[in-house]
Amino acid sequence: MTYELDRDTAVTSLGDGRYAAELAPGWVVGGGVNGGYVLATLANAVAAELGALVPEKQHVDPFSVTSHFVTPASPGPAVVTCELVRSGGRFSTVRATLSQEVDGALVPRIATHSTFGNLDTAHDERSDAEAASLGLALEPPVLPAPEDCLDSQDAPEDFKKIAPLLDRFGTRFDPPTAAWRDGNPSRRGLIQGWFKLADDRPLDPIALLVVVDALPPVTFDLGMPGWAPTLELTAHVRARPAPGWAIVRHQTRTVAGGLFEEDCDVWDAGGRLVAQSRQLALQPR
Amino acid sequence: MTYELDRDTAVTSLGDGRYAAELAPGWVVGGGVNGGYVLATLANAVAAELGALVPEKQHVDPFSVTSHFVTPASPGPAVVTCELVRSGGRFSTVRATLSQEVDGALVPRIATHSTFGNLDTAHDERSDAEAASLGLALEPPVLPAPEDCLDSQDAPEDFKKIAPLLDRFGTRFDPPTAAWRDGNPSRRGLIQGWFKLADDRPLDPIALLVVVDALPPVTFDLGMPGWAPTLELTAHVRARPAPGWAIVRHQTRTVAGGLFEEDCDVWDAGGRLVAQSRQLALQPR
Repeated sequence: MTYELDRDTAVTSLGDGRYAAELAPGWVVGGGVNGGYVLATLANAVAAELGALVPEKQHVDPFSVTSHFVTPASPGPAVVTCELVRSGGRFSTVRATLSQEVDGALVPRIATHSTFGNLDTAHDERSDAEAASLGLALEPPVLPAPEDCLDSQDAPEDFKKIAPLLDRFGTRFDPPTAAWRDGNPSRRGLIQGWFKLADDRPLDPIALLVVVDALPPVTFDLGMPGWAPTLELTAHVRARPAPGWAIVRHQTRTVAGGLFEEDCDVWDAGGRLVAQSRQLALQPR
Repeated sequence: MTYELDRDTAVTSLGDGRYAAELAPGWVVGGGVNGGYVLATLANAVAAELGALVPEKQHVDPFSVTSHFVTPASPGPAVVTCELVRSGGRFSTVRATLSQEVDGALVPRIATHSTFGNLDTAHDERSDAEAASLGLALEPPVLPAPEDCLDSQDAPEDFKKIAPLLDRFGTRFDPPTAAWRDGNPSRRGLIQGWFKLADDRPLDPIALLVVVDALPPVTFDLGMPGWAPTLELTAHVRARPAPGWAIVRHQTRTVAGGLFEEDCDVWDAGGRLVAQSRQLALQPR
């Protein structure tokens, strides 16, 4: 069986660091294609390029991916252009841009750098022991059981029509952070819940790039419905996730000057912090 | 009068998006040149390039700068290569790499994308009013007066020899978060204090790129002295800072797998959040 995410983020080498992709209509939300999905597609190209250039290093996992969203992506063909910046012993950094053809010209959608390594071998035992002795690890929020949370797929039909993306996810919102669905946003700037992919594809480091952008904009909880375009999103993958329900939290602390930051933390089913991201986004108009 | 930061981050156009810089020895700390200083130098080149390419847009301020630190920079000549990714109405995105010549080859030090705009005009009045009505703004920590804090320049002479950087800053540490200086780290993963440049140069958006990397690694407060190399640092400038003492806070919440994130928040003298950054860094060995 092929999972949706694998099928829809597949890339094909065109040589010279160029990869062809096909952005699928199932990941559309509102006017554009979901940013995390575009990022995972691009990351597949980066992984393939590193596999071709420095196969012996096994730099297969994204540690940090920084993305500037310069224009909104559309469903359809796309090309990812990769260029190796530097390959060291533990990490390799690749510059990659995903572009789409518009009226015969190649228009950049996201411009990125990614630092890849290997989550299984990058760290050393001494630092692991030291870290464990500190006990410094961001704790997940305490949530009601998934069956007591609100299913993101229970959305009005007319909303689902413009957001086929909802069918890709099995998000269950923590009820107090989803009261905006009933017109009562908490105004705390917090949305959290359980997360899995709808077809139960197990999460892995590249899928975490989707997870960090899977919840609705945290501005929904501030009484600002509408599209909140991302200017820039940086994702850090901190560990390989264990199977099962993940927990995702989106939070903002400062809305000012027409912009807000959206911090996302993701924990795996074992309660381990596996990814963090921050995006700078435009306040909905 | 010329301030140190302006003199030491000056760039000269070489044409074709290339800019010459000279990294000054005064910004060295331990084995390398301070990352925030290198970033400010690069940002000056990006600002110059945008001033040359799209002068009418006045995209003079960094909103988001994402930087992958691929090799440590040294004092001496450097070149910044800029390439415009996309210029829109409110924002322009530039890809820029700062490199240095080593044995006749140009070696990249930091590989970046920057989204610039104009902090005075990017936002609209309606979103400002909406944001104000929310009252959502990260509050600065309450600190003792600067004169009751610990001067970062009061360091042992042998330490100051390997860290001339200390003479550039007028940092005053909040005492409980600087007890590592006496061998008693709090182990909370928190360092905070007042900040100004030593020569009282007023802070501006580009100087904030220095401020977010101006405190020692937060691992000092975890009982891990030593160099904590940055893999990647993303800085967001949120507002133009008011004159006077800034407040800077460095914090980590998860040390694991040989890595930690270091979050930095900066407030201006009026208590307004003016910059945020997160870096992913290697735990000191």
